[in-house]
Amino acid sequence: MAHIGARRFIIKNDALSGLQFKINKTDGRARCGALTTNHGTIDTPAFMPVGTAATVKAMTPEAVGETGAQIILGNTYHLMLRPTAERISNFGGLHKFMNWSRPILTDSGGYQIMSLSKLTKVEEQGVTFRSHIDGSSHQITPERAVQIQKLLGADISMVLDECTSYPAANQEAKESMLLSMRWAERCKKIYEQRAGYGLFGIVQGGIFPEIREQSARALTDIGFDGYAIGGLAVGEGQKLMLQTIESTEQHLPTERPRYLMGVGKPEDIVESVRRGIDMFDCVLPTRSGRTDQAFTRRGALNLRNARHKDDPRPLDPDCSCYTCCNYSRGYVHHLVIAKEILAAILLTWHNLHYYQELMAAMRKAITNGTFKKFHTLFSAEQSAGDIEMFSR
Amino acid sequence: MAHIGARRFIIKNDALSGLQFKINKTDGRARCGALTTNHGTIDTPAFMPVGTAATVKAMTPEAVGETGAQIILGNTYHLMLRPTAERISNFGGLHKFMNWSRPILTDSGGYQIMSLSKLTKVEEQGVTFRSHIDGSSHQITPERAVQIQKLLGADISMVLDECTSYPAANQEAKESMLLSMRWAERCKKIYEQRAGYGLFGIVQGGIFPEIREQSARALTDIGFDGYAIGGLAVGEGQKLMLQTIESTEQHLPTERPRYLMGVGKPEDIVESVRRGIDMFDCVLPTRSGRTDQAFTRRGALNLRNARHKDDPRPLDPDCSCYTCCNYSRGYVHHLVIAKEILAAILLTWHNLHYYQELMAAMRKAITNGTFKKFHTLFSAEQSAGDIEMFSR
Repeated sequence: MAHIGARRFIIKNDALSGLQFKINKTDGRARCGALTTNHGTIDTPAFMPVGTAATVKAMTPEAVGETGAQIILGNTYHLMLRPTAERISNFGGLHKFMNWSRPILTDSGGYQIMSLSKLTKVEEQGVTFRSHIDGSSHQITPERAVQIQKLLGADISMVLDECTSYPAANQEAKESMLLSMRWAERCKKIYEQRAGYGLFGIVQGGIFPEIREQSARALTDIGFDGYAIGGLAVGEGQKLMLQTIESTEQHLPTERPRYLMGVGKPEDIVESVRRGIDMFDCVLPTRSGRTDQAFTRRGALNLRNARHKDDPRPLDPDCSCYTCCNYSRGYVHHLVIAKEILAAILLTWHNLHYYQELMAAMRKAITNGTFKKFHTLFSAEQSAGDIEMFSR
Repeated sequence: MAHIGARRFIIKNDALSGLQFKINKTDGRARCGALTTNHGTIDTPAFMPVGTAATVKAMTPEAVGETGAQIILGNTYHLMLRPTAERISNFGGLHKFMNWSRPILTDSGGYQIMSLSKLTKVEEQGVTFRSHIDGSSHQITPERAVQIQKLLGADISMVLDECTSYPAANQEAKESMLLSMRWAERCKKIYEQRAGYGLFGIVQGGIFPEIREQSARALTDIGFDGYAIGGLAVGEGQKLMLQTIESTEQHLPTERPRYLMGVGKPEDIVESVRRGIDMFDCVLPTRSGRTDQAFTRRGALNLRNARHKDDPRPLDPDCSCYTCCNYSRGYVHHLVIAKEILAAILLTWHNLHYYQELMAAMRKAITNGTFKKFHTLFSAEQSAGDIEMFSR
């Protein structure tokens, strides 16, 4: 039983989770496993492409599936405002609405409310905010967040939390964390457990190890199907982020999946997998695809750069994605310069595929007990940089 | 031998064309046939999606192929400016550059030079103009137009012509037509005939039947692999356009394909097929796809309209396209409102498929000798309008 501040948190750790999670192999702290939901199984470590407004931007769902993605993320904040959760429910849920038949995880809206909406007011009851779209007023409570995600039909729902801003003083981080824990408890109370569906708690606590530990223990006592680490990648830098992951991870139940929210760059993901994280989401591969960037084994490329103009090579010679199999850097450069929609399509496709191949390579390395070797090779390739077209 | 003005046109009507064209069936003046090029056979009447800058906007080439398209059009004007014909040639030609393995027809640039570029100067030698992209100065001659299209690797090349503006006085239309005929002759002289490749002439002459006739006769005497009708759909209206098609078509060789350039709306295409046209191109289905419009058997829809918000039906219940098989009007409306790239993808996909299904239906009707019945049904459905969601 966790005593935090003047408050106890209920213990409701159901023996049976709605989500089956099996760890097949570990290598150091890195884990390779499988998480089974109502819409299928996800191999972990897993990367979830972000489908903010019921679409992974610039991609058909079939193309997303072709990249190897087994699960996508939907944003409660965006969907509750437009087209609304009730409307999506009337269309038969988010899977049917957007034509994606594999698992979906939805966030709770907390992060976006803080970062996108106006006149946000956080109270014990919940958050009141104005829409960034039309200024209309909305309230979201822990109970409503769970209800919305049920209406959407999410396989994995997230508790409502307050994403503690960075930097935050110890006391501020602690109070914010405690509010998130009380909200997590309310989410758990209202959540109806169903086979194949799950609810994840979210650890908060800024960069303070003892607050993170308290948060992890409180959530474990409440009992969730998985545990997320929130409030990172908000400006603290990679070193503090990795330290915070380490001080949090050791207090999370080993038998449940761990999800690092909103992270990140390929090297952040590799370092986090090494520290025991199982799930990730980030807008980076999709957003970069719309801003002329390609991720490759030898670092990132800017396809706007004129040096690609006459280059017949694919973005990444070791990539097997649709873009690399069929198009040259010169062609993608041309599309970027001509502001063609196909530029966003091809670059997003490649980037998502790159992320999925990265995850698959890590799963293989963990399975083979060669994660350390993988890590060394990955770092060396990334820092080596792109091979110039006419270099020898 | 054609005598026009004070001038004779050379007769160079080679017995063997580089392009095999077989008319399988006629029904009234409507024709159903097959045109064979180096990159495959095109069933006619055919609609060619426009791939201006080496991409059919918002579509992968595989998606274009899935709509049923057997040939696409590329724009010489755009490609010569960016990325340049020489660069595309170095990449192995337009087919390889853009990953499209079926036939490509390229226009000669004449129309776009008149409509897009600045400070255009038309002389006997050719056209001098400034790029709409960066203001740089360029010249295109009939010889250069043929050369560019060869560098691109076009299966079907078009002669350089002056697109007579509308309205034009008789004398102006005649002089402009004569210039186009002299240019056509120069194109034919420089063009190297190769099996599977062809050069089309372009009839000009404004809305004047006698000038159109003179133009058609001059081109026939010079001898081309196919005959296009240019200078229409420039503001003259459907009635004058159809009259001009009629007064032109009767003077074109029956055994060669006829291509109506830049046309058009579904009803324009149906009326033109009825008058003996075999090939079409138009930006309408692709441009409409990026501006929220869907073509259906019961007329056009604006997906921005709030009446689609809760509509679970596909865009067109009789359509078998990717969009109609997988998505609701409500979802497409949501994507449009949320300004998602997928809106352009799904609407373009549907519109191109609609056009291809329309062409296939006409080919079938001509083959079965039921074109008149098809025409009646098509017109009745189009004018009936959309069925409202809650109507009985």
